[in-house]
Amino acid sequence: MTDTLSQPSADLVQRFAAIVGDRYALRDQANIAPYLAERRGLWHGRTSLVLRPGSVEEVSRVMRLATETRTPVVPQSGNTGLVGAQVPDASGHQIVLSLSRLNRIREIDVRSNTATVEAGVILQVLQEAADAADRLFPLSLAAQGSCQIGGNLSSNAGGTGVLAYGNARELCLGVEVVLPTGEIFDDLRKLKKDNTGYDLKNLFVGAEGTLGVITAAVMKLFPKPKGREVAFVGLPSPEAALALFSLAEDHAGPALTAFELIARTPYDFTLRHGAGVTRPLADDWPWYVLMQVSSGRSAEDARALIEDILSEGLEKGLADDAVIAASLSQADAFWNFRETLPETQKAEGASIKHDISVPIATIPTFIERAAKAVASVSAGARIVCFGHMGDGNLHYNISRPLDGDDEAFLDLYKPMNKAVHDVVRSLNGSISAEHGIGQLKRDELIATAPPMAIDLMRRVKAAFDPAGIMNPGKVI
Amino acid sequence: MTDTLSQPSADLVQRFAAIVGDRYALRDQANIAPYLAERRGLWHGRTSLVLRPGSVEEVSRVMRLATETRTPVVPQSGNTGLVGAQVPDASGHQIVLSLSRLNRIREIDVRSNTATVEAGVILQVLQEAADAADRLFPLSLAAQGSCQIGGNLSSNAGGTGVLAYGNARELCLGVEVVLPTGEIFDDLRKLKKDNTGYDLKNLFVGAEGTLGVITAAVMKLFPKPKGREVAFVGLPSPEAALALFSLAEDHAGPALTAFELIARTPYDFTLRHGAGVTRPLADDWPWYVLMQVSSGRSAEDARALIEDILSEGLEKGLADDAVIAASLSQADAFWNFRETLPETQKAEGASIKHDISVPIATIPTFIERAAKAVASVSAGARIVCFGHMGDGNLHYNISRPLDGDDEAFLDLYKPMNKAVHDVVRSLNGSISAEHGIGQLKRDELIATAPPMAIDLMRRVKAAFDPAGIMNPGKVI
Repeated sequence: MTDTLSQPSADLVQRFAAIVGDRYALRDQANIAPYLAERRGLWHGRTSLVLRPGSVEEVSRVMRLATETRTPVVPQSGNTGLVGAQVPDASGHQIVLSLSRLNRIREIDVRSNTATVEAGVILQVLQEAADAADRLFPLSLAAQGSCQIGGNLSSNAGGTGVLAYGNARELCLGVEVVLPTGEIFDDLRKLKKDNTGYDLKNLFVGAEGTLGVITAAVMKLFPKPKGREVAFVGLPSPEAALALFSLAEDHAGPALTAFELIARTPYDFTLRHGAGVTRPLADDWPWYVLMQVSSGRSAEDARALIEDILSEGLEKGLADDAVIAASLSQADAFWNFRETLPETQKAEGASIKHDISVPIATIPTFIERAAKAVASVSAGARIVCFGHMGDGNLHYNISRPLDGDDEAFLDLYKPMNKAVHDVVRSLNGSISAEHGIGQLKRDELIATAPPMAIDLMRRVKAAFDPAGIMNPGKVI
Repeated sequence: MTDTLSQPSADLVQRFAAIVGDRYALRDQANIAPYLAERRGLWHGRTSLVLRPGSVEEVSRVMRLATETRTPVVPQSGNTGLVGAQVPDASGHQIVLSLSRLNRIREIDVRSNTATVEAGVILQVLQEAADAADRLFPLSLAAQGSCQIGGNLSSNAGGTGVLAYGNARELCLGVEVVLPTGEIFDDLRKLKKDNTGYDLKNLFVGAEGTLGVITAAVMKLFPKPKGREVAFVGLPSPEAALALFSLAEDHAGPALTAFELIARTPYDFTLRHGAGVTRPLADDWPWYVLMQVSSGRSAEDARALIEDILSEGLEKGLADDAVIAASLSQADAFWNFRETLPETQKAEGASIKHDISVPIATIPTFIERAAKAVASVSAGARIVCFGHMGDGNLHYNISRPLDGDDEAFLDLYKPMNKAVHDVVRSLNGSISAEHGIGQLKRDELIATAPPMAIDLMRRVKAAFDPAGIMNPGKVI
């Protein structure tokens, strides 16, 4: 299957294998396959070697040998990324460095509110460990049962907890990184304030493994809320949703822990195809919001807060209907509705997806302009608009027309992307709010970002990875 | 006064002056003096030229000429920095680039909760503009009446608002930077989420003008709290303060908007020397805390929250006494006490200051170990310990012994620094939590930081400023 000319020599494979131990150097394609399989099936990478080091020292030795032999290395943790950053290219040249065996939670410090964790710790495992220590680790994603902290940091993951707690970058206080040369940069500090030179940590976070290999990190923990209330709201328009968001933020400030916008179309798709989904509101509305508030004091306090917001919202005509979850199970059902939503789109045929952000004030303008742009590319295409409105971040996906053909629709991938992203750019927004660049958006980033930004990124890349062996072909 | 050999030629001065206009190219030493005067009198820089450009384009042209002629440039905004980053060296070679005329608030967007401001905007002016728009800009420092946003960002300023709202870095969404070559990097975006490549913004923030000149930024605004309550608390020990902090954080979460620790010595200094200061508590205690909570809902809500925290704290023996400010003027008096505190140390003779941070859980250990370290350098030296305990950040200052001699005490500057900083390093802390490195701590940073960190910073510096003209001699 693989091109014998371009793959690492048997001797080199043996030298890499000797570092991690034979059993953790996967060379059989059956064993390698899961590391190449990528959720969306968009990329078909190849490799003849997957290394699974068991310690930071082994990672260091792997990288040293990679530098010495100019072997390109693709770091990978949970392999759930959506832009192809974690898979090798088709050349067969690149080897995969899996961090999944570095899966220790090194320490939970409840008084400093920090967790020191290795790159291979599964997100949900960290959430549960924090919970057991009466703390909250707020990063929360659809893939949390399998994604790992190293990938969360390398992709600067977002999700539903960003509104109140920040994205992966903001949750990270310090990192341990193995550089392309194998040198270890130990910056595992628990400090909220540290002004001793350049912010190197934030270069590695979000770099998608192109500057070094994150092997561990200090993450922030938070007090666990004592009360949490979730409401499902029906609204007339994006303008109303924006005004309701402002009102909720004014009342609740950082106690507003979720504000998710859902348009009628994905709402209906979810009712139609979502397994075990229940209808949140009796009547239908053009737009919906899932809102959550949390309180450090009590359930009653959270209840009073969400009631204040909703009664004022209803009174001002910003909401048409609202149901506050009456029980924990109803709250879970509301969240289940939201989390099931993305996957229900599949049942409606081919789709073209976008992960965009714009200044929050321009969300109604974006929704209006983007609808026209979509129609100009494909009349009848169905707009599946939902997302983290409080962060200005929408997953603006497009399903093929009801009677349309999947393949014909997918042929519109590029013009559809361009149409939607042109609207994003006209509003000074981002074409990748939370998923990253990887392989998927690399060409577009290079073609459309300010040339100065690309130039600066390339200078950083050259300064950190002069041999060009760190995840080549990704980001820039 | 200046060394005619090393200063820029008359012709070059003329070319620079032509860019900004004659009247904004200061060449007379009397006019230049305020730009060289530095608050603590620690540095005695020289220059023959201060340029005061009036637009980003002029900054760009200045930098282009500086690159062409290899002229070192020292960017300066409010000139309130505490580590000498904003003043030229004594060579006379360097020219000063003042950003103070770039003082426009370009936009306040209340729906996106952002302010787009130029580097020369005075912090207090931005606070007031936000307030007028019914928003809060939470960055708050002693120097806020004269410090400017460009310097706040370049030094990643901290202050009393960090606990709930973050430091300057966390408050910044986007920057506009003029690079050493004069090229403009426009990244003035209002996005909470943007994963399109490396985090360049955070390289410029905190770089103390060594990578480029920040000319404008998008800063976050917040809803203005409707209630705020301030309490002054007497406590038995740092351990009690730490436990009270945990308790307050558990109850209030991000509604806990200040938690300042004050030891008995600086408390007494302030009572003795502070102009217009009133005694916060009737009795004396070994330690004090100034605590503030804020509520987006109401004054009553904030009151109930702080009462909850304090009654539980008193009950558990974490606090001995507590007074909640009964009026806005009493709340202001409590804050005035805290803000007056640093300057009252002067009246007690020479002092040696530190701006350190450690993991929050280790603050009691730090206080215990550092006291021994200080005593070993100067028996009888008085420890003036206060600071932002909720951030793990203490201003750990040392006043000379009561009957000691100022000069003899200042001769201990280096061993005292080393003694205190060795304790900081033993706890994996930071020797500059919020003031930066500048000239003051450069040698110590280079000597004591992990060599890998220094190496990476130098690579970044070389990549962004290959000619070495951006604020040379600072940071690294």
